[in-house]
Parts: sequence; structure tokens; C-alpha cells
Amino acid sequence: METKLRFGMVGGGNGGNIGNSHRRGALMDSLAVLTAGSFTRDGERNRRDGERWGVPADRIYSDYAAMAEEEGRRPDGIDFVSIVTPNASHYPVAKCFLAHGINVVCEKPFTLSVPEAEELRRLAAEKNLEICVTYTYAHYPIMRECRHLVESGRIGRIIDIVAEYPQDWMILGLSKDADNFTKWIGDPATSGNSNVTAAMGVNLNYLITAMTGLELESVLAHFGYYPEDAPLETTARIFLRYKGGAGGLAWTSNVAIGHDCTIDLKLYGDKGSIRWSHEDPTRLTVSYLGGPVEILAANRDYLDEWSREASRLPAGHPEGFYEAFANIYREFCRHLLDKKNGAAGQSGDYFYPKARDGVDGVRFVHACVRSQQTGNAWTNVADG
Amino acid sequence: METKLRFGMVGGGNGGNIGNSHRRGALMDSLAVLTAGSFTRDGERNRRDGERWGVPADRIYSDYAAMAEEEGRRPDGIDFVSIVTPNASHYPVAKCFLAHGINVVCEKPFTLSVPEAEELRRLAAEKNLEICVTYTYAHYPIMRECRHLVESGRIGRIIDIVAEYPQDWMILGLSKDADNFTKWIGDPATSGNSNVTAAMGVNLNYLITAMTGLELESVLAHFGYYPEDAPLETTARIFLRYKGGAGGLAWTSNVAIGHDCTIDLKLYGDKGSIRWSHEDPTRLTVSYLGGPVEILAANRDYLDEWSREASRLPAGHPEGFYEAFANIYREFCRHLLDKKNGAAGQSGDYFYPKARDGVDGVRFVHACVRSQQTGNAWTNVADG
Amino acid sequence: METKLRFGMVGGGNGGNIGNSHRRGALMDSLAVLTAGSFTRDGERNRRDGERWGVPADRIYSDYAAMAEEEGRRPDGIDFVSIVTPNASHYPVAKCFLAHGINVVCEKPFTLSVPEAEELRRLAAEKNLEICVTYTYAHYPIMRECRHLVESGRIGRIIDIVAEYPQDWMILGLSKDADNFTKWIGDPATSGNSNVTAAMGVNLNYLITAMTGLELESVLAHFGYYPEDAPLETTARIFLRYKGGAGGLAWTSNVAIGHDCTIDLKLYGDKGSIRWSHEDPTRLTVSYLGGPVEILAANRDYLDEWSREASRLPAGHPEGFYEAFANIYREFCRHLLDKKNGAAGQSGDYFYPKARDGVDGVRFVHACVRSQQTGNAWTNVADG
Amino acid sequence: METKLRFGMVGGGNGGNIGNSHRRGALMDSLAVLTAGSFTRDGERNRRDGERWGVPADRIYSDYAAMAEEEGRRPDGIDFVSIVTPNASHYPVAKCFLAHGINVVCEKPFTLSVPEAEELRRLAAEKNLEICVTYTYAHYPIMRECRHLVESGRIGRIIDIVAEYPQDWMILGLSKDADNFTKWIGDPATSGNSNVTAAMGVNLNYLITAMTGLELESVLAHFGYYPEDAPLETTARIFLRYKGGAGGLAWTSNVAIGHDCTIDLKLYGDKGSIRWSHEDPTRLTVSYLGGPVEILAANRDYLDEWSREASRLPAGHPEGFYEAFANIYREFCRHLLDKKNGAAGQSGDYFYPKARDGVDGVRFVHACVRSQQTGNAWTNVADG
Repeated sequence: METKLRFGMVGGGNGGNIGNSHRRGALMDSLAVLTAGSFTRDGERNRRDGERWGVPADRIYSDYAAMAEEEGRRPDGIDFVSIVTPNASHYPVAKCFLAHGINVVCEKPFTLSVPEAEELRRLAAEKNLEICVTYTYAHYPIMRECRHLVESGRIGRIIDIVAEYPQDWMILGLSKDADNFTKWIGDPATSGNSNVTAAMGVNLNYLITAMTGLELESVLAHFGYYPEDAPLETTARIFLRYKGGAGGLAWTSNVAIGHDCTIDLKLYGDKGSIRWSHEDPTRLTVSYLGGPVEILAANRDYLDEWSREASRLPAGHPEGFYEAFANIYREFCRHLLDKKNGAAGQSGDYFYPKARDGVDGVRFVHACVRSQQTGNAWTNVADG
Repeated sequence: METKLRFGMVGGGNGGNIGNSHRRGALMDSLAVLTAGSFTRDGERNRRDGERWGVPADRIYSDYAAMAEEEGRRPDGIDFVSIVTPNASHYPVAKCFLAHGINVVCEKPFTLSVPEAEELRRLAAEKNLEICVTYTYAHYPIMRECRHLVESGRIGRIIDIVAEYPQDWMILGLSKDADNFTKWIGDPATSGNSNVTAAMGVNLNYLITAMTGLELESVLAHFGYYPEDAPLETTARIFLRYKGGAGGLAWTSNVAIGHDCTIDLKLYGDKGSIRWSHEDPTRLTVSYLGGPVEILAANRDYLDEWSREASRLPAGHPEGFYEAFANIYREFCRHLLDKKNGAAGQSGDYFYPKARDGVDGVRFVHACVRSQQTGNAWTNVADG
Repeated sequence: METKLRFGMVGGGNGGNIGNSHRRGALMDSLAVLTAGSFTRDGERNRRDGERWGVPADRIYSDYAAMAEEEGRRPDGIDFVSIVTPNASHYPVAKCFLAHGINVVCEKPFTLSVPEAEELRRLAAEKNLEICVTYTYAHYPIMRECRHLVESGRIGRIIDIVAEYPQDWMILGLSKDADNFTKWIGDPATSGNSNVTAAMGVNLNYLITAMTGLELESVLAHFGYYPEDAPLETTARIFLRYKGGAGGLAWTSNVAIGHDCTIDLKLYGDKGSIRWSHEDPTRLTVSYLGGPVEILAANRDYLDEWSREASRLPAGHPEGFYEAFANIYREFCRHLLDKKNGAAGQSGDYFYPKARDGVDGVRFVHACVRSQQTGNAWTNVADG
Repeated sequence: METKLRFGMVGGGNGGNIGNSHRRGALMDSLAVLTAGSFTRDGERNRRDGERWGVPADRIYSDYAAMAEEEGRRPDGIDFVSIVTPNASHYPVAKCFLAHGINVVCEKPFTLSVPEAEELRRLAAEKNLEICVTYTYAHYPIMRECRHLVESGRIGRIIDIVAEYPQDWMILGLSKDADNFTKWIGDPATSGNSNVTAAMGVNLNYLITAMTGLELESVLAHFGYYPEDAPLETTARIFLRYKGGAGGLAWTSNVAIGHDCTIDLKLYGDKGSIRWSHEDPTRLTVSYLGGPVEILAANRDYLDEWSREASRLPAGHPEGFYEAFANIYREFCRHLLDKKNGAAGQSGDYFYPKARDGVDGVRFVHACVRSQQTGNAWTNVADG
């Protein structure tokens, strides 16, 4: 029985935050070994990073295409690749690895356009490969309890959703170097047709989907711009309509001074409600009609067993962003290992963001942009 | 020099919450004496209430019209009347007292229709009378510091506003007696054309105005209904556009389980932000670009003097809803006394919600309703 | 049947905080009318204050002794007097009114010495009069639920107590005028033999007693002094031993920078725990063995009916310090009215701090001081 | 220049929490490779764990003594060993590895007796080896800012300290299997002469030392026992006296229902105060005399550079217990690498708990126990 996978990375050199999160997340549970990589275009650094992380010299590649080809050919080639390159290159890199039969983990946003996203999804399906898109925030351990409570009907039918994600990094950056910053924000080669909706709004969209299972039907978006002549939106206010009738609201901004990385999710059902804040990521606030507010903490005995399985430490010992990342990788690796061992699906579903979630995210962004462009009209996400 | 006013009440019998809030608020600072009243239609109770509250027997009236006429005629007649009757009667009662030359304090919503509101406002202006509409939440002591920080430019130009007001009293009521409750909600004689927007949304609208001085231009509303066939909205999600370019978002619901009376206001400027929550009404959360989050507490020395004046107790000794009410009454009484003493306006502005704020509230509700009826289109509040 | 009382005040002139709290608290529920007073020694101000508060001119006294005598003689004399003078005069003033047959409300600390406190208590008992000592913090509405949960056994046998009360007003004052301040602190005529224990520690002692019913047996105190040569303690750390075996800990300081008026009470039983903080005075944090943390809010339906009775406003509408004061006065007035109507005790106990609580507070302070003086030894409060 | 270390583990098999924390912490920054181990006495599991974690088969030892001897002899032997065995074996295992010239990381409590602790410290000093004792809580990234603010004099001279550490795991365990549990708690072979003071109190003692640099002089302890006949204390209330005059208070309990793993530290100086809670481990609450409360967040630009270096992720992305562990290992590895490269101390001090801190912890526990045994008398920790 296989118990360990080999993986490679494209990007992630020089100790950037995202690369570190992927590498540490993938390694945390000893289910995968970093075996190959093309970490950066700077050859010397590429070699040094690979060496530091224990990658054999002959599997440090100067080029992702060469890596995909060689690793796809070797009998002991990598099982999956983690793509942490700039957004615009997600599509070609992912396509290349899929073409060589290698599973893919990809940073969000999945791609810049819907057809690209659809194509990758189709390609993976044809080749029986798996794609994971790393929306992180739904994968803190306690979030499983949120999903469990919704699924089990404890809060009843969902009637209202409020999701918010303010940060201030953009206005902080602007205050330091407005010219460069604004140009960078406005460069479609870097950011596509959306700034904050693509970078942050997609996280809200996935968070809601992952917690509720609801299917988004249409959006009505009202964008804000700072500075006023910013080429792309810095604030997005979005009305949401779900199949089955639930309505909702999303707000995200990267010019909201005072917010490090606040994410608030509020789900209102007709029997109860659930609230979660990224400022206190290990706890869940739950209310049932007529009862007191309850605060649930990760890994306490009173949680569902499936929820507790996501924790690595006893209650009260905080698990953070890396552990949320590791939860995604653990489920993805479990999926690949089960497939290798001919046991896929026997242990139920795998809880990680899949190709479909990547596609949905791109659709969501495009629908919001179109709504804004058409005078804030309701826009079907299927047309996104 | 006059130092004390006489006032009367219409409604407020039997110790209802709103009546108590008005009476206790009006009396707290010994600036007014309860001198007349028509508290309830039940004659025996009316008499008992008046007696308990020290009203002379001959000034306990069975009828508001008789009270207005008699008090308007007496040389020692009341200076103002507080109207705490059901919404639909605000207009005729207020009109009657204004007609007899008596200043008016009126519970919100001011009136059910815009023309009614405009008429009362005009009538007061013609007679040099004052109208106060009791939107309470902007009048906790610390809220003056909020207004002061905005006015003084400390948080820069406002670029984004988020205001929320969820409660669960409606769904709690529905769970106990759905039939009666739904009928009551849907009775236009009681509620007019709006439920949660009129009852709670107006508070958000005033709160933003009072804190920022911004003038609302247009709204785009997306209503929710629970139960699905409820005749009037139980959730309102509203996009806001202000003159000068600021955008915003308001969300209110009375079917949001787990919320006693949560009100969250967030003001984002380009130099800082201010956040306030009714769940911690004595403190303000302030951030300046690049600095740490600061928590300001009511009546601390570091506050502006105008802010500190609103506190009656040392920092850390909580002042609540009655004291917020009393702050409105204190300013209103100060205004009337200054007028009596020929000193109106010499001590600057009076910070209480005026006729104009009452009119604005009614316009706001009507514009939201029209937006919803026209497929969630932007609607000018001037047309509300 | 009597439904209203007459009361007078000694002290409370010039709008001082404590005087205002007593007057507003006593008047809030229309159970008592301010009928007489000797508010300040400044004759002109005394007259003006009395007039402003509606006291008949002939019942504004320049002297408390004259007031006690005259009011004790009149058939329509006051039912009770509220004493809000400096600490050292509590004893003679209270004794004088009791001697003239008038019930007493007295600010804490009750007296400066134990024999004085015992004498007042005895005197009241002999004359069938009631004494109330206004320890406020145990009388926020939600605190009744705390007491109820303890009494009903919901948290089991109490095994540990932690009570804390830090403020920073003393060090703020010292920073402004160290010389004057230190002298004032050290003047035994003003402060007796204790500073922070007498001024703040007594509140913790009563809070624990009122919530748990436990009887304090002995204390071991470890004082701190700031500045180092301060004549009286500015920090008190106190170990507590209760009859029946429960242990506890109290900490209070008036030189703890950053605290407006923080009071934290934590009660640990063998089936659950209760936590309360004055920074969020309307809510209670309750945990039962193995269950999630619950947040209870004042006046919610799920509370005990006795707890809900203490609230004047719907859940979520904050009641503050004045309302806590009013809760004490409401119970005290209810007690006196029941006695007048021959119905005392028929409606159960009256929940306000009584003579015994005043005596206990003085004993507590003296026992702590003695413990400190004897090298931090355990000291019986009975010997305090 | 050496950039990587080899390390081994004794204990930590079967994925226990502590073992995982050490392994993940040590590996996080790629400064050390797990090269040898004796993880558990169960030979099959030992082999499987080693294999899973990539340890070469010939360096998986059935016996710690054999491991110390062999690794001490090999030219490529391990640089340090992490000891995560039951408390009673810390001493012999650590002594054995030191004897073979291998640096030591040891779980707390360091040893059961003071002479043992002193002997290990002396042994390491003689051989120029380093010892690290893993008190974790002082090593969350934001705690460096706490230490920095104290050191730089920002809060002035420290005049009062309050440290608390309640949990409920013991009473939860007792509720499930009282007999076994009580026996286990009472077995001196397992727990030595102290339960909660040794297991949790030591963390408070180190936390204060690490944040303030103050030297503890004497303690006065008052223990609590649950159940009443428990052989060792389940609650410890401790008065603290520091050299230079600061006083303090520590409270810890493992029968405090409702606490997952609460740790609260409050430092009061004469110019400001700092508060930190493990329930919100990434933020610090700071107040300066007369100013508002400030909330500082990890890795924000306004922090000291030394504080920011401890963060691996942008502000707002929570780092948890593993990352705190990794911070200890990173500093320890930096120390060993600097020594190897002949650069020790050139980059300033290394911020991790050292042999001296291990000794201090054992002294602290023994002094508390002695104080309790001598009727709660002040006890010098030098005599502990």
C-alpha cells in the first residue's frame, strides 16, 4: 500500500509567503516529499532553494516545461505539482503538467478567463487527474463543524448570508509608492479585469459554497475605486442570489484601513445561525432560535468527529494559516493515495477545493465585472 | 432666566418600553417636568399612570386633541409634547400640537408618507417650533467622538461605509404565533409599505448622516422575505451612494437569529477608519493608516471636550439606552431654553435629530421600497 | 395601599457622580419622591440644587441634624435618607437618622471601623429600620441570573473563585499632581487605614457574597504601594477562604494603567463555571462540564423569570450603572412599602445590600489590613 | 559555512501531540533534518515512525543509550536530540546525551528535582553544550514586541504582574474515569511532588521572566485540591516578589471548567501596561498613561524589526502553536550553527529558553510546594 507521494513545485523560490505556505502545508503530515522543483528563474537561487529543501540536484529544473516532461516520463516521477507562479501563468503551467499526466495544485485565482478554467477542468477529467485550487480560509479545523451543522440541518434552511473580507494592504502600499502601485494594479497582464474581486472576493464565494453547498445563481455588483481613477476596483459590494431562494451579501475591500485580514462569515437559517471570523479562527459562534449564543472551539469533544479529525492539537492550542493549508493538502494527498491504492471514494468525499471550485471562482469574478459594467444589473454566473 | 421646561406625553401608558425611554430620558437631567399627559385610552389606567408620575389630575387628558387645545391655551401650558403612539398616528397628533403652538418630540418613523413628513416640517418652520425625531443610537456619548473625528478630518475623506443592524425578534415572534404575527406585519395600517427598512433601516440611515454629515443621493435595495410569502420585507440589503462620491452598504434584518440588537457601523476614510458596535456601545475602534488599532472609551481625558460633555459618569461606568435618550432630550431642552432666553444658537449647534432627519428617514424608506419594486434599480432619495 | 415613598439626601450637591447616581437611581421607577435634603454646606448652592430637583423650600436644610429631627417629627416626614457624604461622616449621619426613626441608604464603605458598623446595624434592628449599603456591581440585571445559576446548583459546588478590579484613576491623578494626591491618599481622616481595599476591594467581597451566598472565613493579603512610599496600599492581592472549603483570589489596584473600571468575576464549580466582566456588563459567560461556552444576555426569554424582572428594556438595549443603582433602590423601596402595607416578606426576599453586608465589608477591609501588618498571615474576618 | 543541522528524537512516537510539536517545529524552517530516533519502545512502531519521517533504518534505535553512544561516535552524528519522554526520564536521558557530547532540547518540566536540574546545567556548561527547555507560550511572534516594549522602557518600571493559566482537562478527565485519573495524578513517579504548578505554573513563571527579565525572589503559595482528597494540587494561587520590588500574582488551575487553554499575562508599569491572552495569541493590548488602549498585531510595520522577524506570514494570517515551537527551534538552531561557524553571539542573543530557565522552573515549583507545606509562608526560590 502506498503511503507517501512525491511532489514538485513551480514557483515558490526565495521564501515568498505563498510558496512557503504550500511547501509547509504539503510537508506537514509527512504524506508527500518535495522531490522536484523549478522554484525561480534565477538559476543560482533555484539551485540553492532546491538544495536547502532537500531536492536532488538532477530534479531542480530551470524550466517548468522541461520539468513536466521529465517528471512525466520517469517511473518515479512526481505525483503532483504545486503551482505558485503569478496569476497569468497558472493556465499554461497547469495545462502542461496535466498534459504530462501529473496532478495539479494551483494557487487561486485558478485562471484569468472562464474558457481557460473550463479547459483545464475538462483536461483533468479526460485524464483522470485531480486539480486542487487553494482557497484556504474554509479549511481551518473548526470550519468543518460549520459545514457539518449546516448539512445536518441544525440551523434549518438558510435564508440570509453575509460575507465580508476587508484588508488595508493596498492603501498601505499606495501610501508608500502611489505611482508604481497604481500602475501595477492597472496592468491587465498582472491582474486581469478585476482587482479585489479576483484577489479576495473569490475567497468569500468559495467559503460560502464550501460551508453551505448552495449554488450561486446571479450577482449584482457595485464597485468602488480608490483612488477615484484607479483602473480596477478596490471595493466590491455584491448582492448574491442562490438556487432555492437564499439571498446574500458580500463586501470586500483592500483599502479598508485597520484590517489586517478580517474575514467574517455569517449564515442565517430559520432554526439557527453560525458566525465565524478570521480574527478568531479557531472558534465558531452558533445560535439556535430562542437559545443563548454558543461558542464552539476546535477539537473539543462536543464537536462532530469529522470536525475533530481536522485538528492536530488539543483544544485551545491555536492552529493557524499553515495548518489550514495543510488540511487542504492532507485531503488532496489522501485522495491521490486512495486512487493509487484502488480505494478512491471508499472513505467518503475528500474535502478540498476542486477544479469545479476553481471554475466557479473565475465565473464569479467575471459575472461581478459584467454586472458593474452593465449599470449594476443582476448577472447570471453561468454567463460569467 | 428660564431653567426648566414643562412637557406632556401622548401615549406611553402602561409602562411600555418606548414610553419609559422617553419619560426617563426627558427627566434625567431635571430640565423638564412631566406636567400633562394622555397616556392611554383606558381612562382608569390613564389616571393611575398620570398620578404615579406626578401629573396634576386636571392635566391628565382622555384625548390628545383636548390636551393640545387646553395646553396651547394655558399661560403655563407645556413647552413640548412627546408622541409615542403607533406609527400611523404620529402625523395627526404632531400636526395638532404644532397647530396649537407646541414643540414636538416624535418617535420614529416620523410619518408613513413623505408628504406628511414634509408638511409637519413646513408647519414647524412657519411657527418657529422645533421638532425632534428620536433616532437613539447616534447619541451614546462616545458617538460624539466619532462625529468629531470625522469632522476634524482625522480619518480623511470617507470612501466606504458599512452599516448593519440585525435582530431576531421577528423570527422569535413568528415561532410563537406565526399566524397573528404575519398578519400584523402585513397590515399596512400598522406598518405602511415597509417592515424592517422602516423600523430598523432608518436608524442606520440617520446614524450615517449624524456621524458623517454626508448627503445620501441614491439607493439600490434588494429585499428578502421570511416566510417567503411575507407581505413586507424582513431583510433589506441596500447599496448607498452619497453626494461627493462615497459609496456604502447597509444591511438590516429582523430574522437574523442570535442577534439581540446588534448595530455595527464602519466608516472608512483615506487616512483612517472608525468602527462602532452597539454590543459595546461605550467604546470606539479607531485606526489610522499604518498605525495600530486604538480603542477609545467614553469620558476619557484624551477625547474631545465636546465628546466628554455627553457623559454623565466617569470612564468605565457604563451608560446605556436611557442615557442615549436623555442626551437627545438634553440637547432638545437646551435648544428650547435658549430660545426662551433669547440665546438660541449662541452656544453652537444642538446635536439631536431634527425635522429634516425625520423627513430624510421617510424618503429613505420610500426610495428603498421603490428600488425593490423596480427590479433593484438605483433610485434617487429625492424622489423617495 | 401605599405606592410611593418620600426620601431625602444628605450630600450629593453640585452634581457629583455619586450623588447623581443615588438621585437618578432612586427616582427611576417612580417609587420615591425627593422631598427633603441637605445637599451641601454652601447655602446658596444647597438652595439652588434643592429647587432644581423640586424640593420644597422649607425642606431644604442647612444641617443634617436639623433635617433628621424635623423630618423625624413631621407626619409626612421622609421614609428614608440617602447618605452620600465623605466616608468619615457616614457613621454620625446614619446614626442620627436612625435615632429619629428614619431608614438609611448609605454609600460604601459603610463606616471606618467595625464597632461603628456593628452599632448602626444593632440600632436599626432595635428600631425595626432598614439599612441599605450601595455596592452597585452585583445589581446589573444579568447578575441575577448568575446568582440564580449558583443557587439552583447548575454549576455544582463552588471550588474556586477569581475576582479582579483594576482601575487607573489613582496613577492618572498622581501624574497630574503627585504631592497633593499622595497627601490626600495618606490622610487617615479621609481614607481610614486602607486605600484600594476599602474603596474597591469591598466591592469584590460583596460581589462574591451576593452571587454565591458563601461566607468568608479568612483572608491573606499582600499589598503593593505606588509610589513606593505611599502611606496606604494601591494594590491588594488577597487569598480567600470560605466556610465549606472553597478558596479564592481577589486582586484590585488603582494604579493599573489601561483600565477604566474593569471588574472580572469568575466562579468555578464542579459542574460548570460563570464569568462576568464589567466591560460587557449585560452578558454572562457560562460553561458546563464538557459543553460549549454559552453567552447569556440580559432579558432574553431563556433566563429565569426572577432575572428578567430586573431588566427595564428588551434584550440588546444596554442598561448601565444608573440602572444597576435603580435596581438596588427598587428592591429597597419595595421592602419599605411592603412593611408599610403590612406585607413584608410575602413576596420573598429583597435583593439589595443590607446592614450585614455593610458590616461584612468593613470587617473584610480590617482583616486584610491586619494580614498585611502581620507579615501576610491568614486572618479571620470575624476578628477584622 | 554550515547551514543545516542533524537531529534525533527520544520519544515522540505514535503521533503524540508533544512529539508532533517538536518534530514540526524543528523542521519548519529547514534548518535541521531528522536523522535519528528512538521514538517508542514498541519496536515495530518505532521502525514505522522512523521510516515515515525519513529516518535511515540504521539510525532508528531501540534504546536511547545506544543512540547516544552511536550518534556521539559517528562523524556525521546528530547535532542535538529532542527529548519528549515522560517527565521522570528527562534527567537520565538528557544526562546521557550530554555525556556523549550532544546538545539537548528537553520538554518541560526540565527535571523532577533541583539538584538534577543543576547537574544537567553544569554538565552542559563544562562541555560547551547548549540546553533548550521548550516553554512555548513566550515565543509567539507578537511576544517579542512585548519584551521589546518592556526592555525599551516604554511602560516604565514594572510595579505589578498578573498571570493566569486555567484549563479544564483534568476535571474533564476525572469526569470520565475518576479512579484511574486520581491514581495517576497522585503517582509521584509520574508527577513528582506537584501537579498543576509543575505542569502549568512553570509556564507562567518563564513567561514573566522572558517578557520582563525580572528575577524572582520569593513566593507564597495557596493550593487548592479537587477532589478534596486529591494527592496533589489542582489549583495554585501564588504571590510573587521580584528583586527590585515588583510584586505579582499567578493563578493556575486544571479544574477550571470552560477554559481550553487560557493564558493571560498582564504587566503593569508606571508608564504603561501590556496585556496578552493566549485566546488571541497574535495580538497585544498596550496602554500608555492617559492614552487610549492600543491593539498591536503581529508583523505589522509599526512593530520593532526584531519583533517582525519572528513572523513567517503577513499580518492577519494567524500563526499558532507549531509556529511558536518553530520559533524556539529556529533560535536554538541559529545558536548551534553560529557556534559551528565560529560566529556565536555575533548576531546578538538567542531568544529561546535555556538551561537556566529550566533550573528556574524546577526551583519555582519546589518553592511553591514548600510554601504550601509551611502554612503559606514566603519562601525564597533560591531555597526551592
